[in-house]
Amino acid sequence: MKADIDQYMKESDIAALLVIGGATHNPNMAYFVGQAKLSSGYLIKPAEKPAVLLHQSMERDEAARSGLTTRNFNDYDYPKYLTEASGDRGKALGMLLNQVLEEFEIGGKIALYGKVELGPAYAALGFLQGINSEIHLVGENGNDSILERARETKSLEEIDRIRTMGKITTSVVEDVADFLSTHRIKDNILVNRSGEPLTIGEVKRRINLWLTMRDAENPEGTIFAIGKDAGVPHSSGEADQYVTIGKTIVFDIFPTENGGGFFFDFTRTWCLGHASEETQQIYQDVYDVYHEVLADLKSDEPCRKYQVQTCELFEARGHPSVLNFPKTQEGYVHSLGHGLGLAVHESPKFSHLESNQDRLQPGTVFTFEPGLYYPEREIGVRLENTFYVNPDGEIEPLAEYPLDLVLEMPAA
Amino acid sequence: MKADIDQYMKESDIAALLVIGGATHNPNMAYFVGQAKLSSGYLIKPAEKPAVLLHQSMERDEAARSGLTTRNFNDYDYPKYLTEASGDRGKALGMLLNQVLEEFEIGGKIALYGKVELGPAYAALGFLQGINSEIHLVGENGNDSILERARETKSLEEIDRIRTMGKITTSVVEDVADFLSTHRIKDNILVNRSGEPLTIGEVKRRINLWLTMRDAENPEGTIFAIGKDAGVPHSSGEADQYVTIGKTIVFDIFPTENGGGFFFDFTRTWCLGHASEETQQIYQDVYDVYHEVLADLKSDEPCRKYQVQTCELFEARGHPSVLNFPKTQEGYVHSLGHGLGLAVHESPKFSHLESNQDRLQPGTVFTFEPGLYYPEREIGVRLENTFYVNPDGEIEPLAEYPLDLVLEMPAA
Repeated sequence: MKADIDQYMKESDIAALLVIGGATHNPNMAYFVGQAKLSSGYLIKPAEKPAVLLHQSMERDEAARSGLTTRNFNDYDYPKYLTEASGDRGKALGMLLNQVLEEFEIGGKIALYGKVELGPAYAALGFLQGINSEIHLVGENGNDSILERARETKSLEEIDRIRTMGKITTSVVEDVADFLSTHRIKDNILVNRSGEPLTIGEVKRRINLWLTMRDAENPEGTIFAIGKDAGVPHSSGEADQYVTIGKTIVFDIFPTENGGGFFFDFTRTWCLGHASEETQQIYQDVYDVYHEVLADLKSDEPCRKYQVQTCELFEARGHPSVLNFPKTQEGYVHSLGHGLGLAVHESPKFSHLESNQDRLQPGTVFTFEPGLYYPEREIGVRLENTFYVNPDGEIEPLAEYPLDLVLEMPAA
Repeated sequence: MKADIDQYMKESDIAALLVIGGATHNPNMAYFVGQAKLSSGYLIKPAEKPAVLLHQSMERDEAARSGLTTRNFNDYDYPKYLTEASGDRGKALGMLLNQVLEEFEIGGKIALYGKVELGPAYAALGFLQGINSEIHLVGENGNDSILERARETKSLEEIDRIRTMGKITTSVVEDVADFLSTHRIKDNILVNRSGEPLTIGEVKRRINLWLTMRDAENPEGTIFAIGKDAGVPHSSGEADQYVTIGKTIVFDIFPTENGGGFFFDFTRTWCLGHASEETQQIYQDVYDVYHEVLADLKSDEPCRKYQVQTCELFEARGHPSVLNFPKTQEGYVHSLGHGLGLAVHESPKFSHLESNQDRLQPGTVFTFEPGLYYPEREIGVRLENTFYVNPDGEIEPLAEYPLDLVLEMPAA
């Protein structure tokens, strides 16, 4: 949680965090400034001191909404630095940032954050590092990352926001189910009242509309993948493809709050009208493993343990998994889930590799999504819900929706 | 244009471009892979050779849609590197990228691109640089940036896509004007048929809905700012504020294609019902300067010349400008425009600083947006259209919409 940042900084001997970029769709900046509409910015969080936000002059009122101490970019002489740097913007920005660091008397290890265009940042930071031997700029990964660690456990207010996104998500899923079932069946595909075939592109347009109506955004798109595409976990579905009955549809939806705040993540697998015996058997294997592993989840246990368990359960049922067939493209081909918050993928990780030390700490929000994939047989099944390890260590779902495979359709 | 990349690489002695990150909302990756839904990826473009896309195994079909040569991440042994690196993901990724560079026999200067989380990239690239003395990783800025230069001039197909976004944008603006004028006036604010006040939040929700209906996205939000907020160029407007008659409303809308492709950018300033004489005078100054400078724009001329001209014209009319009052928060406080494409702000720049050597080359798409701001007087006026320097060197608007200040309202 945010309150842990100073402690984590101390443990890692970090003198300051430097977060770069705008506040929309930039998780680590949004973590500090909230919903302010900043197109760019530099946030400095010195150890044991409050964060300071450096902003463009014409974004001063947006910056003020963050509630943080602010500094106007115009308080520094960027044009002077640009002249000194003969027009090299990377150098000029490096000089300006150096002035800011000196003003706040920051020396030592500075950890870098922010979702930004890499080239200009690399140039400015490389120059800054070259002119200031008192500092040591570092990039951090995974659980070595102070902000990733802090963000991994959520406050009750953050949980409420994710829960709200869960309600929005499941209500859109219900709209999609209703929409599909208003269609008729002709030659094994869905058609509307005029007999025109329904396309995946039209389903996705509706999803975007229903999300927008509920004030959500869908920046990374929706997976609505049928048949062979359902058999490849991240194939998103072809816009001009028709919606066929009887085949597996993997419907994976991961919207965020307007402006890019907290995400939700949810998957169901549907067969419209009916499912083949082969599909039902594969679905049953996923369903059984889902419930068996879910029942075993315990607070503070290592995440990798449940990935190993899932792999072993699937392999016992005759499906290859990444545990013993690391490069398999059939069977269970991914990990059991991932942390979720201001990014759709964050800590903890569920990789089975021994280097993965992530645990299900109280406060963690995570997706839980076993699946089986057989692209050549045109079958893919994934069931995904988002859960929360509450402060009492109980595993709570953050949204509820039936897991059913077959979506009933009116007769042809 | 894309066809210029090899030439620009040669001029800058760059051996390869390395573009990192997913393909949604990542302009430099989208430039190569188009609308493929990749959540992560590494693209290498060696000099004089076609680009190669390294992708996750479960995104292999999405990667194939790019039409590029692809490499599956599973063809490399990341778990082995992770073990060698004692679980340090930055080092492991650095080692893997090093193997890829060796496979493609790349040595020399490698330019970095991609909108990514800075920390992990900085760690991996720093490690890569440390273990491979044959390469020199560089970040580029502005017109030193090969991809920024290439993207600065657009192909006819790209122009068509931007023009389509222009049609979408102006049709939504028309919807907003219609929506506002269906309201009644009570105590100087807009109310609906039930007498409930209209809020800026509701206007913005409608804008998002109307954009989504037209298959556009609005990842950076809309500016719909009234009164004092209109007087600060990037104040976006408070959601719970009412829509008042007679005050200036700066309405700046900058949506993108679904999934994050080409943007459009458009601003009008409206007064509902009526405008004060003071506001009309300020509007007239913006309107006159807009037309005077626009008429002077010529292909291949330096952009800074028009910013200087705009500043001088405004100062001649008694308004301070950034030319002689670089830190002013009143008058003309920003630059005349910016390039537009896969990013809402790209080259060319219109800064008046002498270091700005950008020109209006044929193929350039740019916004043209003079404005005047007086926050203490609760007035802000900006008029913005997006233009194109066509292959014949003519300046063409990419969308048309009336510039009128006063939006007629039904009587109270």
